[in-house]
Amino acid sequence: MRIDVNECASLLKEHNNILILTHAHPDGDTLGSGYALCRALYKLGKICSVVNADEIPAKYGYMYDDIVPIEFKPDFVVAVDVATDNLLGELQGRYHINLCIDHHSTNTEYADNLLIEDVPAASQIIFKVIKALDVEIDSRLADCLYTGLTTDTGCFRYSSTTADTYRAAAELIDLGADNGKINRIMFETKTKTYAKLERAALDSMRFYDNDRVCIITITQQMYRDTGTTEQDTEPIAPLTRGIEGVEIGITVKEKADGTCKASIRTFESVNAAQLAKAFGGGGHMQAAACRIDCNIEEAVKRLVEKSGELLK
Amino acid sequence: MRIDVNECASLLKEHNNILILTHAHPDGDTLGSGYALCRALYKLGKICSVVNADEIPAKYGYMYDDIVPIEFKPDFVVAVDVATDNLLGELQGRYHINLCIDHHSTNTEYADNLLIEDVPAASQIIFKVIKALDVEIDSRLADCLYTGLTTDTGCFRYSSTTADTYRAAAELIDLGADNGKINRIMFETKTKTYAKLERAALDSMRFYDNDRVCIITITQQMYRDTGTTEQDTEPIAPLTRGIEGVEIGITVKEKADGTCKASIRTFESVNAAQLAKAFGGGGHMQAAACRIDCNIEEAVKRLVEKSGELLK
Repeated sequence: MRIDVNECASLLKEHNNILILTHAHPDGDTLGSGYALCRALYKLGKICSVVNADEIPAKYGYMYDDIVPIEFKPDFVVAVDVATDNLLGELQGRYHINLCIDHHSTNTEYADNLLIEDVPAASQIIFKVIKALDVEIDSRLADCLYTGLTTDTGCFRYSSTTADTYRAAAELIDLGADNGKINRIMFETKTKTYAKLERAALDSMRFYDNDRVCIITITQQMYRDTGTTEQDTEPIAPLTRGIEGVEIGITVKEKADGTCKASIRTFESVNAAQLAKAFGGGGHMQAAACRIDCNIEEAVKRLVEKSGELLK
Repeated sequence: MRIDVNECASLLKEHNNILILTHAHPDGDTLGSGYALCRALYKLGKICSVVNADEIPAKYGYMYDDIVPIEFKPDFVVAVDVATDNLLGELQGRYHINLCIDHHSTNTEYADNLLIEDVPAASQIIFKVIKALDVEIDSRLADCLYTGLTTDTGCFRYSSTTADTYRAAAELIDLGADNGKINRIMFETKTKTYAKLERAALDSMRFYDNDRVCIITITQQMYRDTGTTEQDTEPIAPLTRGIEGVEIGITVKEKADGTCKASIRTFESVNAAQLAKAFGGGGHMQAAACRIDCNIEEAVKRLVEKSGELLK
C-alpha cells in the first residue's frame, strides 16, 4: 500500500522494536537514510538497529561510531533506499518487510507499506519523515542526512538535483551538518590502493560507436594486483561518463564466479534504466545496473550491441 | 567608501553607461558576476558591457553568446570579483574604478565604493544586488549567477560553502538555472586528450617521506604523446593532494627549455606558500607555485628535501 510521509511517521510511532535494513554494498545514501532514521527513533525511545548484508566501508564511520548495536526481536522492519528485495543481498528473505522508504522509480513494491518519492536521494524523503516524527535534529543526525544527499547527487552535481535538494542541504547545514568534512571524505580523498585501482580502470577504458559509448572493465585480477575489492569500485562508474562526447558510460565488473555486473551512466539522451532492463536490471534515468551471466568479453560485446540499438 | 547592497543598487541606478570589468584569466565567478549584472542593467534600460584582459574559455559561452558587445563612453566603471587592481591584467590603470563588488578578504580597496562581503562567491553578492535592483531574473541571468556559485565552491564541495550558498542555488534553480548542464560543462567533462594526459600524470605519481609527500611529474614528452599543452595541466595539481595521508602534493612540470615549474597543494598542516618561497615563488596557504632552474629529476630531489624539512 502506498502511504504518505505523515502515515509513514504514524506507522513508525506505533512500533517499538524497529529493524532498519539497508541495501548490500551499502553507500552513503542507504547508510545516511538508515542511521538518520535510527537516530530519530532513538530520540522517541524506540529500540532500533541498522543492519547490512556487507561490511560498511570505514569512511562512513562518523555516521554510526557512537552507536552500540543491540540484539532484539523486531516488531517492525523497514528497508531504506532498497529498490528490489534482492538488493538486500544475504538478508533477502530473512525478514517480512513492513515498510519501504525509497526513491527509485523501479521499486518492485515488495513491502507492506511503501513511501516512494521521485527525489535524488532517499535521505531527502527520510528528512521529511523525521520532521513529521517531530524530533530534534542534532548535528550527527544532520551529518547522516547530508551524507545521503551529497553522495547520491555527486556533491549536488547531477542534473537530477533539484532546488529542494539544495534547500534540504541548507537546512541541514543550519542544523550542524559538517558539509566541508563530509565532502572531503566522500569526494576529495582517495586511498592509495583505490588510486591504483582507478589507474588500472582508466587504462582499461575503451570507446565504441564513434566514441559515444565508453566502457571500463574491472577484473578479479585487478582487485588482487591493487589490494582492493568490489567495495572500492563505487567512484569508478561516473568516470565513464566524464569523457567529452560519451553518451553511455559502462563499468563492467567481473565477479568471483566469473560472471559480470554492469554499472551504467548516461546523460539525458539515453535512459540508463532502459539499457539495464534489457539485461534484467534496473535503476534511474541516468544511473542503472544489471547482472550479466557471462564472462567479461561477452558482457562487453552484448552491452555495446544493446547500447548501439539505443543510440539509433 | 564601504557601501551596502541597497546603496550599491542606488549607485547603479543613477548611471546609464556602465562598464563592468572582470579579472584577467577570467573564471566562472568573475564572468558569472559580470554577465549577471550586465543582464540586470540591460533590463533597466542601461547601456552596459563586460570587458576582460584575456580571452574567455569557450566553455563559458552560454553566459554571453546572445550579447552583442557595444562601444560607448562609460560614466561608471564597476569591477567584479577583482581583489587587487593588478588582477585586471592589461586593463589595469585604463579606467577610474567607481565601484568594486568582491568577496576576497584581501581586497586592496582600490575603488571609490566598495561592496565587500565574506561569502564563497562574488556571484552570491551580485545576486543580492540584482534583487535590490528589482529586475526580473530570467533563466539566462540565473545561469550566470549559478555558474559563479558552483565554480567558486568546487560544486558546493569546499568547506567555505554556507547554508546561504545552497539557498541561493535553490532560488536560482527555481528561476530556471540549468544546474545539470552547467555542472556537467564545469566539472564532468574531460576531453579525450586531457584524459590521456591525466592517466600519464597518475602513472608518474610517486610518494616520499612515509607517503606524506606525493609528486606528479609532467614532461614535454607527455605533452607530445597525448596531444596536450601546459594549458591542459590546470586540473592535475589538485590530484596530488587527493591521496589519503598526503600532506604535500606537488606537480612538477618540465618547460620547453628543460627547467621546471612546480604547483604545490597542501592541507591545513603545511603552508604551501612557505615551501614555494624557498624556491623564490609564492601563493596561498594551501596552493602555491614556483620555478626551479634545473631538470625534472633534480627539481624533484630538491622539493622532496625541502618538503621533508617542513614536515619535521
